Amino acid sequence: MQIAIPLYDRFTSLDAVGPYQVMTHLPGAQIIFCAERPRGVCDESATLTLAAEAAYADVPDPDIIIVPGGPGQAAQMTPGPLQDWLTEADKTTTWTTSVCTGSLILAAAGLLQGREATTYWMAHDELARLGAKPRNERYVFDGKYVTAAGVSAGIDMALALVSKIAGDEVAQQIQLGIEYDPHPPHDAGSPASAPPEMVAAFLARSRFTPAGA
Amino acid sequence: MQIAIPLYDRFTSLDAVGPYQVMTHLPGAQIIFCAERPRGVCDESATLTLAAEAAYADVPDPDIIIVPGGPGQAAQMTPGPLQDWLTEADKTTTWTTSVCTGSLILAAAGLLQGREATTYWMAHDELARLGAKPRNERYVFDGKYVTAAGVSAGIDMALALVSKIAGDEVAQQIQLGIEYDPHPPHDAGSPASAPPEMVAAFLARSRFTPAGA
Repeated sequence: MQIAIPLYDRFTSLDAVGPYQVMTHLPGAQIIFCAERPRGVCDESATLTLAAEAAYADVPDPDIIIVPGGPGQAAQMTPGPLQDWLTEADKTTTWTTSVCTGSLILAAAGLLQGREATTYWMAHDELARLGAKPRNERYVFDGKYVTAAGVSAGIDMALALVSKIAGDEVAQQIQLGIEYDPHPPHDAGSPASAPPEMVAAFLARSRFTPAGA
Repeated sequence: MQIAIPLYDRFTSLDAVGPYQVMTHLPGAQIIFCAERPRGVCDESATLTLAAEAAYADVPDPDIIIVPGGPGQAAQMTPGPLQDWLTEADKTTTWTTSVCTGSLILAAAGLLQGREATTYWMAHDELARLGAKPRNERYVFDGKYVTAAGVSAGIDMALALVSKIAGDEVAQQIQLGIEYDPHPPHDAGSPASAPPEMVAAFLARSRFTPAGA
């Protein structure tokens, strides 16, 4: 089972590595990080460089696609190598998935038209403008399309996807394997739980810029 | 504030990238992935390659060290470049930390002697043999030494560390920024919550090999 994770400049590293860490333990999985050409790809901070070992052309028909989000997503929503590859490769996938603002890239390719989906908490309006029906969930399944909320939500989505593919027991084994028994020191991980003034302040200083803005 | 994350062959990617994703948003933080020499370092699956941009010699006195774990940890517990660097660099750190079996590397360097610490759930006995006092916690602070449980626990530890360094509000803002509102689809992330037969089966087929085994 071939799983392609496309990388692009200024992706968010945990968006890619969270699901990777789960899926790499799925029996029979072969994961390939890819880009328009094989190269090291810098994340949003230009501090972390992850190797894309394959070109998109080398991975024409993956079984699963996982598109990460990140500040660089806006540049991937217009015609170009990622949109071209995604449009073609999606035709034969079993699952096409995204994390965070990766869903905006899927939506820009027309893949989420009329579908229920989720995205980063600040990007729900943008996702609606692109034709999807945003849901305030940790992850959303709609047919073969699976979208996760922001950044860390890719871990939850990947475990749910493993459950669908290989059964709950395999998902639970992987969860135990990565000791995913989360205990954040605070309860501020969503706009519903964070203090309202913090949500407002965060929005005011955020670097997130929807493609249409 | 310089934060060094040493990489070695067969590290576990989420051990490194989880805390990275949190700490990269800490105001004033400069994160450096390092190795015995600058190179791409392969993770446990030999599928993910993360760039170590610096040599250990280039990062002699970081403020914070975060040592990831992974199957490759055993090879880092004997005299060599990582142990040498760790022993010297630790003398001037503000915080010396680890994720998962990274604590075994700290313990092998003598840094956890008599200290409370934690590690991957399967490695508590090994940690005790190395002179630490294992605690069954998500993360443990003992002086400037902070250790996290397995893999995903590095995210929780990093948020707790940000609270200590910059205050709860900054930690909460980062948590909101990475939408860390975890909702695993199952409750199997610790040996206490997973079905006992699954824990036993997992142990039987595990590739985890303590250095002393």
